[in-house]
Amino acid sequence: MTFSHKHLLGIEELDAADIGLILDTAEKMAEVSRRPLKKVPALRGKLVVNLFYENSTRTRSSFEIAEKRLSADTLNFSAGTSAVQKGESLADTVLNLERMQPDCYVMRHSSAGSCHLLKRFSKASVINAGDGAHEHPTQALLDAMTIRQKKGGFKGLNVLIVGDIGHSRVVGSNIRLLGKMGAKVTLCGPPTLIPPRMESMGVKVDTNLDRALEGKDMVMMLRIQLERQQKGLFPSLLEYYKSYGLTAKRLGLADKEVIVMHPGPINRGVEMDSEVADGPYSVILDQVENGVSIRMAVLYLLLGGGSDEAAD
Amino acid sequence: MTFSHKHLLGIEELDAADIGLILDTAEKMAEVSRRPLKKVPALRGKLVVNLFYENSTRTRSSFEIAEKRLSADTLNFSAGTSAVQKGESLADTVLNLERMQPDCYVMRHSSAGSCHLLKRFSKASVINAGDGAHEHPTQALLDAMTIRQKKGGFKGLNVLIVGDIGHSRVVGSNIRLLGKMGAKVTLCGPPTLIPPRMESMGVKVDTNLDRALEGKDMVMMLRIQLERQQKGLFPSLLEYYKSYGLTAKRLGLADKEVIVMHPGPINRGVEMDSEVADGPYSVILDQVENGVSIRMAVLYLLLGGGSDEAAD
Amino acid sequence: MTFSHKHLLGIEELDAADIGLILDTAEKMAEVSRRPLKKVPALRGKLVVNLFYENSTRTRSSFEIAEKRLSADTLNFSAGTSAVQKGESLADTVLNLERMQPDCYVMRHSSAGSCHLLKRFSKASVINAGDGAHEHPTQALLDAMTIRQKKGGFKGLNVLIVGDIGHSRVVGSNIRLLGKMGAKVTLCGPPTLIPPRMESMGVKVDTNLDRALEGKDMVMMLRIQLERQQKGLFPSLLEYYKSYGLTAKRLGLADKEVIVMHPGPINRGVEMDSEVADGPYSVILDQVENGVSIRMAVLYLLLGGGSDEAAD
Repeated sequence: MTFSHKHLLGIEELDAADIGLILDTAEKMAEVSRRPLKKVPALRGKLVVNLFYENSTRTRSSFEIAEKRLSADTLNFSAGTSAVQKGESLADTVLNLERMQPDCYVMRHSSAGSCHLLKRFSKASVINAGDGAHEHPTQALLDAMTIRQKKGGFKGLNVLIVGDIGHSRVVGSNIRLLGKMGAKVTLCGPPTLIPPRMESMGVKVDTNLDRALEGKDMVMMLRIQLERQQKGLFPSLLEYYKSYGLTAKRLGLADKEVIVMHPGPINRGVEMDSEVADGPYSVILDQVENGVSIRMAVLYLLLGGGSDEAAD
Repeated sequence: MTFSHKHLLGIEELDAADIGLILDTAEKMAEVSRRPLKKVPALRGKLVVNLFYENSTRTRSSFEIAEKRLSADTLNFSAGTSAVQKGESLADTVLNLERMQPDCYVMRHSSAGSCHLLKRFSKASVINAGDGAHEHPTQALLDAMTIRQKKGGFKGLNVLIVGDIGHSRVVGSNIRLLGKMGAKVTLCGPPTLIPPRMESMGVKVDTNLDRALEGKDMVMMLRIQLERQQKGLFPSLLEYYKSYGLTAKRLGLADKEVIVMHPGPINRGVEMDSEVADGPYSVILDQVENGVSIRMAVLYLLLGGGSDEAAD
Repeated sequence: MTFSHKHLLGIEELDAADIGLILDTAEKMAEVSRRPLKKVPALRGKLVVNLFYENSTRTRSSFEIAEKRLSADTLNFSAGTSAVQKGESLADTVLNLERMQPDCYVMRHSSAGSCHLLKRFSKASVINAGDGAHEHPTQALLDAMTIRQKKGGFKGLNVLIVGDIGHSRVVGSNIRLLGKMGAKVTLCGPPTLIPPRMESMGVKVDTNLDRALEGKDMVMMLRIQLERQQKGLFPSLLEYYKSYGLTAKRLGLADKEVIVMHPGPINRGVEMDSEVADGPYSVILDQVENGVSIRMAVLYLLLGGGSDEAAD
């Protein structure tokens, strides 16, 4: 089976077979990362531009390592660079970069839809590394890879996502992916952080964490941006923790083989206790490891297509 | 024919044959950038230090891509780094870098002549990526490559350069190059932005844009640094635009096969209308593309000399 | 002989044979840096993370060049990056990076002992690139390489280290290394900058520079951090220079084949006169050159072990 997409803008555009192919390819890439010589020539002579308008050490590092393991050339182009500071528009920046013949852009941007704008101006592949509160497809894919490794699949899985639902791009991509793969999603968090009418996306909403945890196979705790509190969306971090922090005791309400996920970085003592973050149910670091594999897989499928040399 | 220079400090030191060789080599490099595997081993094992004392995303990215396409190792060393912040002189920085055995420095610096200082302390090749208001030779070379592609040559060509003549390193390098190649140059801009006695460089000066545009084959609009206005060198951006902004209507005064150039990034609605920047006469993005080719050619001629493997 | 260490946290853990092996390997690496094609495939497919919590252009550049000459992939991860700014602990940062399968960390951190913490969480090799005022082993090794080149060995050598003894990681590593190799070390500086009971480390202390210089084979001048003065540890830079600045005249008090060292960057006119820094006894730039060789040797011995391909 081949991958028919040129871009990865969101989970929305993928079907279950696409997702399966990405996860299968990522498992092969994971083997590359475990070799002593962890590098394949699949993308030699390809140029990948990492276009990060928002800081994200973790995501950028994960992509950069993926690119280097595939032997691509990389150019890091970050906000705070002179052309952007000089007021150049995204369109003009891209029109310029485009003439340097990149093969792929990996873009993080604060505005939802910015990757679609980029795609309009680009002959190269575009990978969305997070656009506003819209999509963050490689995050949902690495989450899916982790779930599949731990649970064997998605059908009928009871999933709970907890926290700042309204401001999270991770949620959007995960709801889409988990829905396509047949999992049942419940959202939980303070009413001020859950947008209205989420049920129309095919999910349940429950603002009581203890009740929502019952029987869940996977619990994903979202990061609380500390600046939300300043806007009055919840009274204090302590209050948030009391109602929505994941303790070992609370986790006992979930299925006894539950796994705990978090996109990182964790605010220990806010979203969850260290006892949970570092405990036996946590697969948070597996998510990080799978992140490199997923990004290698996506880059390979978008750019290396057709050849099997990556797996040699 | 071989290239007899070790450094590229300015257009001043090149003759017409040197310039022709660089442009011919750049056309071959352009082919490399259009291949699926856009990389040649010409500079494998060579170390290029990008020494940028002024921010310049565009120029630095263009050089960095050129270096990677030639398989050189790169070290980015920028201002705001600790040694410079600790008050180390340029001479001491170079004496130190020198012992790390670089093969080439690409330097951008705010002081005219800084590249000549660098050369004095260096056994490696030096490429001037812009020194104060003095020279920016690769910019003039990429402009020349673009002109030659669109106009077939330089002899007798009527060229107009408009804007902040006094503060532009682009102008200096272009006047020298275009003069050597046989083009006729006119400069235009507010009298406050044109230094006295420019005619001694063999150019005409005209402060009236409409009159200056007549019969021109190429119009190069320079970037207005917005901080100039604060120094009272022109009354307002709107006033500047009214007198010296390039509109489609004004462009009609030039030769009917005129090309429009700009070193970027453009202030749309100040130096020119978007209708002009994105219009059929604009070759601004060709300049960007040629920038990578020119930088590959210069690096190759200075460092790779003798071998033809880059073109294989 | 083989190198039995996995990490390089400090000189403390090395014996004289280890040090000899590193210096011998570094001499071979120096040959690589003098070739036209200065690159060997020894660490191809290895990932080295440069984890710099403190700025250090000089040390980071030296490591980065060493890594590239050995064909390793590099990831630069610096303080001021988002995860660190978001308050992530060193332990969490490392636990995350760890899952990206690095082969080696090169870490600079302001806290003594931070590299030992890193090692606890890491399956990869750890190289200490300076931890607080504790150790900076590659600096001491490059100093040793320079001494051995100029003096033939260490036995019975009279060494003087001058300046801010109390705040220097360079001193700690050098005292340990020179002691192990059989040199005799004297420390000199203002009493406010020399910690009590240094004699317990097997060194002499003398606060009078003229007296201390007598008969010395090597004089190492430490960098004065200008912020020390603000804390009142010495009255003024001029006073410091008068008592502890190395002038050509003062240098005449030392052995007539004395060599002068400095870890850089130099405050000219504070720690020493330019006449000394640039004079015939100075080996300061040799230190810089040897820095790349030592870092190549350490990376090679820790990561490339067993094979001799680096020297082919």
